Amino acid sequence: MTTTMSPVVPGAGRLRPLSLADVRITGGFWGRRQDVNSRATLDHCLRWTRREGWIDNFRAAAEGGIAGRRRGREFADSETYKLLEAVAWERARPGGAPPAAAAEVVALVAAAQEPDGYLGTAFGHPGQPPRYSDLEWGHELYCFGHLIQAGVAEARSGGGPLVEVARRAADHVCDTFGRDGAVQGLCGHPEIEPALVELARVTGEQRYLDQAALFLDRRGHGTLRRAEFGSAYFQDDVPVRAATVFRGHAVRALYLAAGAVDVAVETGDHELLAAVVRQWETTVARRTYLTGGMGSHHLDESFGEDFQLPPDRSYCETCAGVASVMLAWRLLLATGQPRFADLAERTLFNVVAASPAEDGRSFFYTNTLHRRTRSTVPDPEAANPRAASGLRAPWFAVSCCPTNVARLLASLGGYLATTDGSGVQLHQYADAELAAALPDGRRIGLRVATDYPAAGEVSVRVTDAPGGAWTLTLRVPGWAGHAARLTEPAGVGRPVGPGLAAVTREFAVGDVVRLALPMAPRWVAPDPRIDAVRGTVAVERGPLVLCAESVDLPPGHEVDALRVDPRVPPEDAEGRVVVRAELVGPDDHAWPYPPFEGPRAAAAPPGDGFRAVLVPYHSWANRGPSTMRVWLPTAGPDRGGTRCVSGTEAGDADRP
Amino acid sequence: MTTTMSPVVPGAGRLRPLSLADVRITGGFWGRRQDVNSRATLDHCLRWTRREGWIDNFRAAAEGGIAGRRRGREFADSETYKLLEAVAWERARPGGAPPAAAAEVVALVAAAQEPDGYLGTAFGHPGQPPRYSDLEWGHELYCFGHLIQAGVAEARSGGGPLVEVARRAADHVCDTFGRDGAVQGLCGHPEIEPALVELARVTGEQRYLDQAALFLDRRGHGTLRRAEFGSAYFQDDVPVRAATVFRGHAVRALYLAAGAVDVAVETGDHELLAAVVRQWETTVARRTYLTGGMGSHHLDESFGEDFQLPPDRSYCETCAGVASVMLAWRLLLATGQPRFADLAERTLFNVVAASPAEDGRSFFYTNTLHRRTRSTVPDPEAANPRAASGLRAPWFAVSCCPTNVARLLASLGGYLATTDGSGVQLHQYADAELAAALPDGRRIGLRVATDYPAAGEVSVRVTDAPGGAWTLTLRVPGWAGHAARLTEPAGVGRPVGPGLAAVTREFAVGDVVRLALPMAPRWVAPDPRIDAVRGTVAVERGPLVLCAESVDLPPGHEVDALRVDPRVPPEDAEGRVVVRAELVGPDDHAWPYPPFEGPRAAAAPPGDGFRAVLVPYHSWANRGPSTMRVWLPTAGPDRGGTRCVSGTEAGDADRP
Repeated sequence: MTTTMSPVVPGAGRLRPLSLADVRITGGFWGRRQDVNSRATLDHCLRWTRREGWIDNFRAAAEGGIAGRRRGREFADSETYKLLEAVAWERARPGGAPPAAAAEVVALVAAAQEPDGYLGTAFGHPGQPPRYSDLEWGHELYCFGHLIQAGVAEARSGGGPLVEVARRAADHVCDTFGRDGAVQGLCGHPEIEPALVELARVTGEQRYLDQAALFLDRRGHGTLRRAEFGSAYFQDDVPVRAATVFRGHAVRALYLAAGAVDVAVETGDHELLAAVVRQWETTVARRTYLTGGMGSHHLDESFGEDFQLPPDRSYCETCAGVASVMLAWRLLLATGQPRFADLAERTLFNVVAASPAEDGRSFFYTNTLHRRTRSTVPDPEAANPRAASGLRAPWFAVSCCPTNVARLLASLGGYLATTDGSGVQLHQYADAELAAALPDGRRIGLRVATDYPAAGEVSVRVTDAPGGAWTLTLRVPGWAGHAARLTEPAGVGRPVGPGLAAVTREFAVGDVVRLALPMAPRWVAPDPRIDAVRGTVAVERGPLVLCAESVDLPPGHEVDALRVDPRVPPEDAEGRVVVRAELVGPDDHAWPYPPFEGPRAAAAPPGDGFRAVLVPYHSWANRGPSTMRVWLPTAGPDRGGTRCVSGTEAGDADRP
Repeated sequence: MTTTMSPVVPGAGRLRPLSLADVRITGGFWGRRQDVNSRATLDHCLRWTRREGWIDNFRAAAEGGIAGRRRGREFADSETYKLLEAVAWERARPGGAPPAAAAEVVALVAAAQEPDGYLGTAFGHPGQPPRYSDLEWGHELYCFGHLIQAGVAEARSGGGPLVEVARRAADHVCDTFGRDGAVQGLCGHPEIEPALVELARVTGEQRYLDQAALFLDRRGHGTLRRAEFGSAYFQDDVPVRAATVFRGHAVRALYLAAGAVDVAVETGDHELLAAVVRQWETTVARRTYLTGGMGSHHLDESFGEDFQLPPDRSYCETCAGVASVMLAWRLLLATGQPRFADLAERTLFNVVAASPAEDGRSFFYTNTLHRRTRSTVPDPEAANPRAASGLRAPWFAVSCCPTNVARLLASLGGYLATTDGSGVQLHQYADAELAAALPDGRRIGLRVATDYPAAGEVSVRVTDAPGGAWTLTLRVPGWAGHAARLTEPAGVGRPVGPGLAAVTREFAVGDVVRLALPMAPRWVAPDPRIDAVRGTVAVERGPLVLCAESVDLPPGHEVDALRVDPRVPPEDAEGRVVVRAELVGPDDHAWPYPPFEGPRAAAAPPGDGFRAVLVPYHSWANRGPSTMRVWLPTAGPDRGGTRCVSGTEAGDADRP
């Protein structure tokens, strides 16, 4: 049983998390975002959940008469729970400022719990469908999962009323869905699984862990009634131990995988852990976007087939990005392998950071990699459609993403570093003060100073040094290739390759270890089997994926006119990145499939193009309606259109 | 007022259709398909509409008690109407064999009509939502549209009970929705518009035409309550006269455009006709698949953005293909321009012909251009999901496509040729006997003999020749380039370019005009602005789009391993088409976005690849589960994977 203040506290594993109270992000990229999350986003979420009536649902459930009064979708309760979880992490965060109004919401939630522990506003009350009458789509256990996570967060941030609410809810779930329970079923949307394991960790209750494992085993046998989307949507097509890749609804798949890792770690089930690792590997190799985003289909918010990664129809739901970070963190704690922290970094900087606007009051639900047309500004006073716009919206009819971003940003300090028997491991780079307690009781203090990702230098100064040697391990990201350099205290820099760079010594207070990561912008090419981006390239700088945005083009041009020349390296120029490019003019033909013209000449030497500015993908759509693309077609004879900005080509066949 | 036996009979326009009774398709590609449609598909549709309970709905509506008994979606009535329309055309078709059981269905439909002319099984009866309480999604006017089209078809094939049913329904619609009507609304799904105009043509009733025009004017002002899909889904974002391209739900957009052309032709509204032509042009230039298919989004069965044409997620609903042919036909009749017949030909051979299986008892609803994984065989006794499978299904939960195919195939004779003051115009090539009545009363008989599209020779023999000169005009398809040859009677062949080839003379019985179309298979390249198929090529042969199917590959290979070399022309080989190709082996990397490797060397000279067989796209998925692709990646350094069938490449970055 543990009350370590951290988002995930496994009972076993290679690495242990630090306590949130021992990590203070003091500035920089993530410091700014935690600050905005604290000052603006939490209140924004509170305001909107209230305004949409989702908080009042709890009051109506407690008072009676909710049928006919209830507002929101069947899963609306979960947004309130995720908000309360975020508030709890904010409370644990050094310098955090949890909104006082949250206490009243906690009371309303607690008051809506029924004597047998059930808590939910959409089912079971007079005039409503019965409890558990629609396990496929009712989201009841999903909501319990988020409720329990909120209770866990309260337990780990000093305690609160939701801890007991969570216990009673979990007891009800075990009573109802246990081996001898009345309902031998499972939920259409995973989330109860990781939640129950976390509650088992907090309370020491074995039955919560057993129930999570039971839910895992029930899944994958085609039990859930198939909708038009099929069993894979719910990950109910194949048992989790037998699956080879993540498929179906992305958020469901990732929450399920997180729960499977939690169960595997607590039960010592190495086969189960290996199965999830294998699925993760295949998904990352074949079904993941350059940004780390996951989800290729709008129709069912799902993974696509292998290499089906269209940038324009990328779904890349923000919640899937949050879930991917949570899963990667669990896999990192379990195995110690830096590849998981690599993906978490990529996803944090390019999906999670992309979702909120700079002011923290509007969000992307889906994260496209190719916006062709400028959007109209979303109604700031309406719950917007999820996936329609190239601009962030204040809220959505289905609004799971803002609260997910809020809880992850509030708890982000917990994802930076770990300890093990040897010392301290830094996984994510941010300006921060950290304290770590080794298993043997020694305490280590570190001050990480960095302007990452704007700059690549990370300096780690020892502020509290126990006696004896210990190891400081720094992650060298995969994108750094072999160009990173590590400098030990009073030492000379040495190259370090991708993976882990370790320094073992008897550190003294004031010792500094420096890691220099190569920040020259670089071209990347897609695997040619990814059909949708064949013939394009993209640019990364450090962990950031870059993009072209129409705001930076000569007036009157959209990004689809850009052609880039990857034979010329991208350059840093006055804090931005520029690439050699040209603009092609409009060039319509009546029929766009002309006869193949024969072998192409080699691309012309770089001519009189111009230097196109690229900006971080996470920053797009903050300067008004725009067009944007990450994957840029290369210049050359196949570039289409005409060189420069006017004129048309004649002579192609123009008849269908 | 006219009872010419034809699918569309405009009151004005450049060209006039022939009567269905005057066209007998005697064999070949379309003859076989009309035969299968007649012998198998009509009964199949009858069986399934009965089995799904959709015909019984009419009985229950007439008898009372339909609420609680009704089966099927809100628009299920329309499938019965389209089936009855198909039966009527089958009756008009020389050699046609309409199923006798249809008469009973007609009687059931007629009996369900209410005294005020309303006819519909989903609304207005005790226990059901009120009439017109959900204009966005209720499909009531849509169903009326198909009912009226069935009545028009009966009127034009000798008459029948549905003619009066259609008139009474149309009167009800005009009473209810007219300028002074109780409901100043419009339907979420266009179809009433072309139907009313056609009924006006049959009956001479101006008010039906006025009502169609009124519905057109009501649309485009954001009147319909927006769902998550937005106003464009319903084409309610912009008035039809102001729109610049087809957008939103593809079938809705195309039926609406057909109705707009009908209204424009009957009212002499040149601006409206020009607006539809402009929209058609832009849609064909930017939003149409190589097959002629339309619809890029699964989520809302809609057009995508310009150049958003992913082959794997092509929706290309069969109904949209049918609607596209119907629209193109109207534009051809109005303007005489062969480009419309070109698109109709492409769509007929590559979408309409692709939908039904060879036995006419299963269908594609969506028509993908890239199938990556083999499907499981759909349940032959279940209404299947619309878009999930790479195999045809016998029926669908939403089953608009089979009856649409049936009505088009039954009436296909009406789409082959036209007359005008000068003579006869052949637009589509099929083995057929035709009789045409010129405006001046002279009758012309033609015998078209061809094995098109297997072979390119079309011979047109005059079988009935009036005195005096007249002009025989043959369409030379755009794909023929400048390689077609026309031979006049007893004359020498001359080259004819794409467009129209005309022969004017005083023909004698027995005179033969021959058109030789070039049937050498040819590579085509996509406009580079179509992001999703950059770096690929496809093959066409005559009007047919070809594809690679895994059934024709060496065992154990799927089509995604193919790379083709378009520097080597495709060849006809023993009735099939072969291309120079190679197979690449599996080559997974942990992270599929490695650093760009620098300028590529020119592609190696054609090496020891193999000859890959390509088959007509319309014929795919008739040999069991398979993978398939139309757009084929080209061989070369960027081809990805390893040459030949084994081995892996090392050395790429493999960290995210």
